[in-house]
Amino acid sequence: MAEHRFQPTRFHNTLGPHEPALSIAPGDTVVTDTLDAWGADATGAIVGTRPNPMTGPFLVEGAEPGDTLRVTIERMAPNRDRGWTFSVLAPNVVDPQRAAQMPERERVEWIIDRDAGTVRLENPPTRLRDWVLPLAPMIGCCGVAPALGQAISTATSGPHGGNMDYRGITAGVTLSFPVFRPGALFFLGDCHACQGDGEIVGTGIETSFEVAFTVEIDKGRTIGWPRGENAESIFTLGNARPLDQALQHATTEMLDWLSRDYAMDAVTASHFLGQTVRYDVANVFNPAYSVACRVAKEDLERAGATA
Amino acid sequence: MAEHRFQPTRFHNTLGPHEPALSIAPGDTVVTDTLDAWGADATGAIVGTRPNPMTGPFLVEGAEPGDTLRVTIERMAPNRDRGWTFSVLAPNVVDPQRAAQMPERERVEWIIDRDAGTVRLENPPTRLRDWVLPLAPMIGCCGVAPALGQAISTATSGPHGGNMDYRGITAGVTLSFPVFRPGALFFLGDCHACQGDGEIVGTGIETSFEVAFTVEIDKGRTIGWPRGENAESIFTLGNARPLDQALQHATTEMLDWLSRDYAMDAVTASHFLGQTVRYDVANVFNPAYSVACRVAKEDLERAGATA
Amino acid sequence: MAEHRFQPTRFHNTLGPHEPALSIAPGDTVVTDTLDAWGADATGAIVGTRPNPMTGPFLVEGAEPGDTLRVTIERMAPNRDRGWTFSVLAPNVVDPQRAAQMPERERVEWIIDRDAGTVRLENPPTRLRDWVLPLAPMIGCCGVAPALGQAISTATSGPHGGNMDYRGITAGVTLSFPVFRPGALFFLGDCHACQGDGEIVGTGIETSFEVAFTVEIDKGRTIGWPRGENAESIFTLGNARPLDQALQHATTEMLDWLSRDYAMDAVTASHFLGQTVRYDVANVFNPAYSVACRVAKEDLERAGATA
Amino acid sequence: MAEHRFQPTRFHNTLGPHEPALSIAPGDTVVTDTLDAWGADATGAIVGTRPNPMTGPFLVEGAEPGDTLRVTIERMAPNRDRGWTFSVLAPNVVDPQRAAQMPERERVEWIIDRDAGTVRLENPPTRLRDWVLPLAPMIGCCGVAPALGQAISTATSGPHGGNMDYRGITAGVTLSFPVFRPGALFFLGDCHACQGDGEIVGTGIETSFEVAFTVEIDKGRTIGWPRGENAESIFTLGNARPLDQALQHATTEMLDWLSRDYAMDAVTASHFLGQTVRYDVANVFNPAYSVACRVAKEDLERAGATA
Repeated sequence: MAEHRFQPTRFHNTLGPHEPALSIAPGDTVVTDTLDAWGADATGAIVGTRPNPMTGPFLVEGAEPGDTLRVTIERMAPNRDRGWTFSVLAPNVVDPQRAAQMPERERVEWIIDRDAGTVRLENPPTRLRDWVLPLAPMIGCCGVAPALGQAISTATSGPHGGNMDYRGITAGVTLSFPVFRPGALFFLGDCHACQGDGEIVGTGIETSFEVAFTVEIDKGRTIGWPRGENAESIFTLGNARPLDQALQHATTEMLDWLSRDYAMDAVTASHFLGQTVRYDVANVFNPAYSVACRVAKEDLERAGATA
Repeated sequence: MAEHRFQPTRFHNTLGPHEPALSIAPGDTVVTDTLDAWGADATGAIVGTRPNPMTGPFLVEGAEPGDTLRVTIERMAPNRDRGWTFSVLAPNVVDPQRAAQMPERERVEWIIDRDAGTVRLENPPTRLRDWVLPLAPMIGCCGVAPALGQAISTATSGPHGGNMDYRGITAGVTLSFPVFRPGALFFLGDCHACQGDGEIVGTGIETSFEVAFTVEIDKGRTIGWPRGENAESIFTLGNARPLDQALQHATTEMLDWLSRDYAMDAVTASHFLGQTVRYDVANVFNPAYSVACRVAKEDLERAGATA
Repeated sequence: MAEHRFQPTRFHNTLGPHEPALSIAPGDTVVTDTLDAWGADATGAIVGTRPNPMTGPFLVEGAEPGDTLRVTIERMAPNRDRGWTFSVLAPNVVDPQRAAQMPERERVEWIIDRDAGTVRLENPPTRLRDWVLPLAPMIGCCGVAPALGQAISTATSGPHGGNMDYRGITAGVTLSFPVFRPGALFFLGDCHACQGDGEIVGTGIETSFEVAFTVEIDKGRTIGWPRGENAESIFTLGNARPLDQALQHATTEMLDWLSRDYAMDAVTASHFLGQTVRYDVANVFNPAYSVACRVAKEDLERAGATA
Repeated sequence: MAEHRFQPTRFHNTLGPHEPALSIAPGDTVVTDTLDAWGADATGAIVGTRPNPMTGPFLVEGAEPGDTLRVTIERMAPNRDRGWTFSVLAPNVVDPQRAAQMPERERVEWIIDRDAGTVRLENPPTRLRDWVLPLAPMIGCCGVAPALGQAISTATSGPHGGNMDYRGITAGVTLSFPVFRPGALFFLGDCHACQGDGEIVGTGIETSFEVAFTVEIDKGRTIGWPRGENAESIFTLGNARPLDQALQHATTEMLDWLSRDYAMDAVTASHFLGQTVRYDVANVFNPAYSVACRVAKEDLERAGATA
């Protein structure tokens, strides 16, 4: 149950079978830093390359293919006072005719007030002069080394996780990932100070962070797609295009979860989800879109379903 | 400002330029009944045909093409004690391989306790023996006569509204529809006692309802897709396949709304939506899927944006 | 077996249960004129309204819901010397980023040389100064009154046919449509002097035509989607978005055809199609995209499969 | 201009920055063997693992990132007398409801008559008793090491090529791939004795092959997606889901090609493609679907456009 303070010096643009940056044991906590999406660290120095340079990988001792890696995000906070976004909606979230009429996108700076817990545009358009938003930290890209020895770009995502850009991945959540390689090899980075659904401007408020996380292994438990749990909900994440297929992956994974841990057969789970399911559009920007299939714990309890 | 108690005797399976069932004036309230999706009324008698027989159309005096019809759902309540759903997830919401393994779907009965404000399965599977859910009424299908003199099946949806199956269409919401025909010709039906996101079993809890609504006309205001507003939020609805395109339509319509009523140009609206937007997956079952693009009024106020 | 020369005076922007323009008997041939997509006739006079004004409907005596209407295109030829197209690729056929960089689209004129059987741009860009193409006539929009009493815009398509913009619908083809209304109510229009796959500039070479067609009824034969047959091939047409779903509809309809007329069960048809099928992308521009699933008669013969 | 006879002993399930199997020079020809999709060689022995074990990589001396690798398929022939397919259509090529009714898929054996140049089912269903098809060899999976140091599964495809399953990749075609790594690192495998459009049963007729290919480098020429050329046509390949996006990638790449090599600006290329383009559905089975955008050389010549 060690706590490691890990200072990264090498960063990766793929999730793959890279040399472990640190070996840790189940139960251990790591406190580490992440770069922003374009490689800037806490000082603003560019020390990594695009896209989304990752901290890690962390080898978790004892994790074997077929197991599940559980990662609890203990806390996360930006470690600098500035972030950035793009200035216009991505062309794939508006009608194609409208996309052609949008102004050109620029990189825009934000001020992060860590004491106040807020963010605001540095040079806001007039209409947003007084606009101050609560800080809402999230991890844009995290996951494990994929199946088949693949090394997959941090621009995209898959069953191994990756660039899912889901605002639900934040402090207090426990994520689960399928383990494909000995040691699982966990990566993280691309954290955002805030982001709406869908990452529709193509970024959250991109900045560097300090993140603390704890790992565990579920030996012999095999899952198909990333899963998460927090105080209110359980959720699964499906990654694909179009959104329809991402939703299919997430729903299928939730069926498996309800079957194994909540003793719901296909009809029981259908009744339950049909009346209670919530879908979150995590991102509609990356090469693979991401959808979360979410169930409230209150609904599980109401159904007498406890894991 | 009359209140009409309208008892329907004819029902329509298309939204189109049908003979008005009742002419009403702006400001008028109508209290009327709707059949369930398969045509059963409050007594359970089958008096309409599939799919989704509609009550109406209501001709709103003075509405002209290019105007907007506003419909406030004042209240809605089931008028019988039973509803029904399908028993398994639709094949298009799970992975194709999994869809092939699902049991055959059956129609399943639910008990609606109107006094307690709850719903429950009549013959629940063991696991859901004690499952009782809050009643959560919504209108599955409503809208106006479409453009070009079209008459479009109540199974699907479009810019005119129709079978959007969005759980956000409930008492307290004010909907807006583009007017394509003199008098607008408003239809409603296919109400549900409850439904999760996506209508993923292919139904909500289908039953007959009494609905009270009030109409207004926004003269000379032209919109592109259905919109809504309640105490907490404003939202737009896009209808198409795949989900990606439904989301594009909804987002584009929200851009137009923010531009006209909240004085946000494309960059301002992009900044605002990029950090605050929420998407709801209304349905992923019908021939056209529906996505709501939703903005919290709290976020509009924080941005100093008041309509 | 009458031959009717029908001069249309009224045109429709929907396929629906409209007043018949002419009643004809099975075996009859009709020679009639069609307007171009924007309503211009042989003289260039605008006598119909957008989109795609239709000639018809032709009521076929004896056709009943559940039957199949067969329409053989006997011959078709432009009846004027000019046509037009749009000047740039539609935004939905190129990458969204690229779409934003395309020039604005304009309407561009073409010269149709009916004697030579060729088409050419009136004012070609330098690079295409000497470009002369063979005339390749096709019907962009044809079909029958849809199910449920619907009236559906001639901009889109469905099981009833409509705006499929398939270059395979030309002289020598026999089309089949499901009959949904007594008399079937056949419409046609929106003919093109030429068009590549996909109608990717949003038009073919739009012009007015004279078309001769003969009708027959297959009593008691029920089909799900439009089908066609010519000297070389049989094909089915699926209409939907995304292309994936259009392809699913077309393939499913071909399975039904091979099952009923060629005695192929699901495995037999799978073996056969797996090695021989061809798909044509009819249009990727309209609200519903269209895909043809095509099988060569030579392949059917090789498999000993004759209808 | 050496000719190498290369006997592979190691196979790869990813296209990535693997140790070169052989270094060759521009102009060199390689004659080598490929395994079938499940790893069986000419003797039927299983010497590679699923999916689609690749022969290679071949390092091409002098190829640098930003160059283009050209690979001419000189000849290809099966090197054993048996192949196999799956027995039913994939669930994603028919309507979801129909997919649920298809029989379970089995692996089915085919006889390859190399002398006669034909293929036939070993145990055909009655209806296909006499069905004999011409041998039509093609390469299912080929490409180069991807960008960013990625290693990507041979089940899928991308800008680097991969599992495109296009029946147009056969003897006589010259393929072009973007070079992302020094030496390009060319892989090939998963050849088919025959296949219809779309690889709709999830396989072609899978067997092992001998393939001869020659490599060249286009120094300083940068392309975005795989391209091809044979005696009749030039084509580009786009890989993505849904088919719509694959088609967008392929069309955008063709625009670039017509611009650079045929001096066509956006409007000129739009006119040209609008009337002449053909799309082939390469596969609708793999995680990324593949579409070919194809232009006949006859059409280029007619337009006075010669590269």
